[in-house]
Amino acid sequence: MKKIMNDPMNFVDESLEGIILAYPDQLRYANEEKRGIVRVKPVKNGKVAIATGGGSGHLPTFLGYVGEGLADGASVGNVFTSPSSDAMVNVAKDIHEGAGLLFLYGNYFGDKMNFDIAAEELEEEYEIAVKSVRISDDAASAPKERKNERRGVAGIFFAYKIAGACAEEMKPLTEVAEVAMKVNENVSTMGVALSSCIIPAAGKPTFSIKENEMEIGMGIHGEPGIERTELKTAQEICGKIIEYLEKDLDLKSGDEVAVLINGSGATPLEELYIVNKEVNNLLKLKNIKIFKTFVGEYATSLEMAGCSISLLKLDEELKHFINKPAKSPFFQY
Amino acid sequence: MKKIMNDPMNFVDESLEGIILAYPDQLRYANEEKRGIVRVKPVKNGKVAIATGGGSGHLPTFLGYVGEGLADGASVGNVFTSPSSDAMVNVAKDIHEGAGLLFLYGNYFGDKMNFDIAAEELEEEYEIAVKSVRISDDAASAPKERKNERRGVAGIFFAYKIAGACAEEMKPLTEVAEVAMKVNENVSTMGVALSSCIIPAAGKPTFSIKENEMEIGMGIHGEPGIERTELKTAQEICGKIIEYLEKDLDLKSGDEVAVLINGSGATPLEELYIVNKEVNNLLKLKNIKIFKTFVGEYATSLEMAGCSISLLKLDEELKHFINKPAKSPFFQY
Repeated sequence: MKKIMNDPMNFVDESLEGIILAYPDQLRYANEEKRGIVRVKPVKNGKVAIATGGGSGHLPTFLGYVGEGLADGASVGNVFTSPSSDAMVNVAKDIHEGAGLLFLYGNYFGDKMNFDIAAEELEEEYEIAVKSVRISDDAASAPKERKNERRGVAGIFFAYKIAGACAEEMKPLTEVAEVAMKVNENVSTMGVALSSCIIPAAGKPTFSIKENEMEIGMGIHGEPGIERTELKTAQEICGKIIEYLEKDLDLKSGDEVAVLINGSGATPLEELYIVNKEVNNLLKLKNIKIFKTFVGEYATSLEMAGCSISLLKLDEELKHFINKPAKSPFFQY
Repeated sequence: MKKIMNDPMNFVDESLEGIILAYPDQLRYANEEKRGIVRVKPVKNGKVAIATGGGSGHLPTFLGYVGEGLADGASVGNVFTSPSSDAMVNVAKDIHEGAGLLFLYGNYFGDKMNFDIAAEELEEEYEIAVKSVRISDDAASAPKERKNERRGVAGIFFAYKIAGACAEEMKPLTEVAEVAMKVNENVSTMGVALSSCIIPAAGKPTFSIKENEMEIGMGIHGEPGIERTELKTAQEICGKIIEYLEKDLDLKSGDEVAVLINGSGATPLEELYIVNKEVNNLLKLKNIKIFKTFVGEYATSLEMAGCSISLLKLDEELKHFINKPAKSPFFQY
């Protein structure tokens, strides 16, 4: 295991400390909660507060999307592990400004369990209205008919961007939650993994994969994908993934999408742009219009090599919100 | 070699095509030059034009710093190879708006040779006033007394940021060049490498390094560093590097610096923030004030694992310019 770190047991806490030290004007701990990060600039009174959270190891997901026009706070778990419900409650209490709270997070069992406990506590003990939206965009993890069983991966970025912009326009909680659900219904992601990540406390690769192999559809924690084959060209990989996503979203000639090419951690940006070129060509062939493209590391898996492609099918409302400004230390628009 | 690409011979061209497709409102090819990228938004008449360039494989360096408050154009070579002087001339002609041109690039033999040829051609054939500033910030590559022999690495980011802001204020060419030189005199960088990169056309690692080893001071193309040892903790690595940089810049109690923690390509952001925590602690011990911190991938070496730490010693002029806005698809401030 080759990592620049100290004691693996302090990996998350030290990383969070480094983040707070880097951006003292933008991020701070939630009151006395070392596993909660919130905006320094207070949430506007009457604005719906958006809290997210999840395991560490995916930066900039989750806390990287705490900022203006995005989420307002994030709870942080150990590497690839749900945060505690206590951390979630502490973040929520810190950012809530009277207009209710949206829990927006990826669809994993542990996260759902803890966010549900936190929501109950917030409603019963603190009388805060809470709605929860789980993003389940990983097309490889369950068939379309069981969309709500899918895992959440990089597509959550679109939900932060769009629900964040909606909340910034002072819309009520039901509307912010509805637009987040609309994102979830219209976003689909598929990834490809070329090498494994290593959880610091485990000290060895999560899975093994041969030097000439790749796995399509692998999850961001190394969950099994749908096909392991020899390494293909960018053109072949994109062909396979785009065909899958087009069917999944029922895309038709003339439809508009936003594209996210997300690096898993160790894949050079140069390669992500080659992927973007292929995705552009493939969508053009079907006369699907690209409204906006995002390329970079948006939801990583530590040092995993690979990438994912997300498509978000757009309507006028989603286009309106996706184009609004956003600003966190990790993402500006 | 595990890369998501097509023919290795098309690696650079396809990657550039993917970049232009991603940001059609912000970047375009320089007139008919497939190895030149310039801003879509025209350079203001009378503003000094800043052109950079260098080998591919270091994104966002170089072309990622083409934008408002940064550079205006970049020529692109093959992986780890200088661009041609023709590409440099084509970029320069495209962006020059009557107020002269600054060539701002990293100090490598091939780049210097070609930028010098280009400068001569621009002056003699096109009567464009050209000044050249080479950034030589890699403290491991030559002793302080031979600063101008050092290689250029991640510290060039500060030169883009500051010279770019100076040009944006419509300062004359001599002043923009002088502030870039001031950055160079006051910036020092040292890296640590944990694994090798692989040049696509070569298909095998540039150097070999054992599973338990790291190399301090390795260059961004795999040039030999100053010490190969067993892998140390973040605290030990930072202790060694910061001690070196403090001496190199003759930092004293009360001095102010900007900090850049740069990822080499495969190192997770979480680790870079652990490094940032250590750097903060070490500078605090010496009462050196941190004016601004930048953490992320600023100058990569394809999929190399490792990072570099740059310190820029600040005065009021540098602080003024570093805090001005900047906007490219790869960097916003």
